[in-house]
Amino acid sequence: MRVLVTGASGFLGRPCLEALRARGVELHALSSKAREEAGVRWHHGDLLDAGVAQDLMQRVRPSHLLHLAWYVVPGRFWQAEENLAWLQASLGLARAFAQAGGRRMVGAGTCAEYAWQGELCVEGQSLLAPQSLYGAAKLALGQTWQAYATSQGLSCAWGRLFFLHGPGEAPGRLVPSVLQALGQGQPAACTHGQQVRDFLSVQEAAEALVALLCSEVQGPVNVASGQPLPLAKLLGELGRLAGHPEGIQLGAIAAPAQEPNFLVADVRRLHQEVGWQPRLSWQEALAHTVAWHRKGALHGRA
Amino acid sequence: MRVLVTGASGFLGRPCLEALRARGVELHALSSKAREEAGVRWHHGDLLDAGVAQDLMQRVRPSHLLHLAWYVVPGRFWQAEENLAWLQASLGLARAFAQAGGRRMVGAGTCAEYAWQGELCVEGQSLLAPQSLYGAAKLALGQTWQAYATSQGLSCAWGRLFFLHGPGEAPGRLVPSVLQALGQGQPAACTHGQQVRDFLSVQEAAEALVALLCSEVQGPVNVASGQPLPLAKLLGELGRLAGHPEGIQLGAIAAPAQEPNFLVADVRRLHQEVGWQPRLSWQEALAHTVAWHRKGALHGRA
Repeated sequence: MRVLVTGASGFLGRPCLEALRARGVELHALSSKAREEAGVRWHHGDLLDAGVAQDLMQRVRPSHLLHLAWYVVPGRFWQAEENLAWLQASLGLARAFAQAGGRRMVGAGTCAEYAWQGELCVEGQSLLAPQSLYGAAKLALGQTWQAYATSQGLSCAWGRLFFLHGPGEAPGRLVPSVLQALGQGQPAACTHGQQVRDFLSVQEAAEALVALLCSEVQGPVNVASGQPLPLAKLLGELGRLAGHPEGIQLGAIAAPAQEPNFLVADVRRLHQEVGWQPRLSWQEALAHTVAWHRKGALHGRA
Repeated sequence: MRVLVTGASGFLGRPCLEALRARGVELHALSSKAREEAGVRWHHGDLLDAGVAQDLMQRVRPSHLLHLAWYVVPGRFWQAEENLAWLQASLGLARAFAQAGGRRMVGAGTCAEYAWQGELCVEGQSLLAPQSLYGAAKLALGQTWQAYATSQGLSCAWGRLFFLHGPGEAPGRLVPSVLQALGQGQPAACTHGQQVRDFLSVQEAAEALVALLCSEVQGPVNVASGQPLPLAKLLGELGRLAGHPEGIQLGAIAAPAQEPNFLVADVRRLHQEVGWQPRLSWQEALAHTVAWHRKGALHGRA
């Protein structure tokens, strides 16, 4: 099993490499940032550049592809034009993979592919109606990859990620920004917190994606906890773990208008077909994330 | 209004040019085949070649784009890898169009985007579940174009075509092959003919697409008759018009296994929002097509 991971130096890419290294596969990593690391063969390149995918596939000839690279600048990625470029590049990547004799490909989808209707999101059943260009481009890619794989006799799955926290999360996002405020002794101004979400740590999500890659399950699979978690509960636990429960100010800012009230995955496919479920409680997973951020703050990171 | 038509020398492209010329717009046509024609500014190029779309858009700066070009080799197009290349190229085309100041884009979708469930296909309501790579790639393009247009403040519609007949239809397809057999005094071996379809002549479909382009209607719009027509009725009329009703042999060959029994459009959006409906009965439209094929046979074409 020779695996190529794209976006390998990203938030999700790094723990995916760790999970794959633990499985002892021949591991190739593509990143637009130069890297070095034991047990991983790093390749340097940008998939948006013409020819990069084809050259790499011909040189590496991976049997398995885990495609994580995308445009992910916080705030901007929802409606950015770059979503189109990444959709184009990801289609070319699949063609190059198939032409180089690849066997199974798994891509990173998103809960933003679903219509947000306040019910559990069930693969192959819930309505798909993205509200963003990001969600539309990811949905388009997952569906086209699947049809392409069928036509070429490849195996293909599409891991739809929900909400993540963990090492390396971008500073402006919910968990890091709350921890940063609390760490500086300032209050963390939050929305009402009644939104119900589905959280995993990024390490858990990476383990699940790697389990999916190593399985033969095909089609869309929610990579999520399946546990409805109100943000107020998550925030309360964050405050407690950070030692500043009083710093969490629910209702201090308005929630975005289009935000769904309830966005939680049905995880029967992940549990029963892929055979993966989290070993930690959400509190334990969050404690690891808080510990990582605290260590980073001590060492001057973030 | 400055219109650019891609795939302009194709089956649908030619009558679209005629319909647009009748409206007196500034008309630019792109084709991979060199052409000349009064009232049309022809551009020669292949959208699969890098840079062609961007160069052309910068030179022409169309306000309106009618994108018909795709891979359409009969029989092969359903599962051909070329669908991915055309999806990639069509995404690049939209970006180049937006960058050059374009205002409204309309693409050619297909009834193959719908799940074939034996009910009228209703835009925005019926399940979308393509059975082919062609349908998946077209669906992906329509949905991504729409989301991209929204994010860029462009106007966008997606005309889903159903079944067509008319001048220039490829020889191996249903109507031309039946007419060819009958014209040579041979029987036309047909399936049972109980399949119900939705037919327009290609000239009618072109008029409808051009009406859609000239409207401000957004999103998917079925470009079809809305009239359920059993193939046996169509074939019977073809036999009568060709002067050989006895040549139509229903049930002589097996129907393809995955073929839907009923594939007909709901056309309320086309009638009520776009304001277009056919002027001819299906028998009249078919008579025109038969006359065209007969004239071609007299002059040694097909």
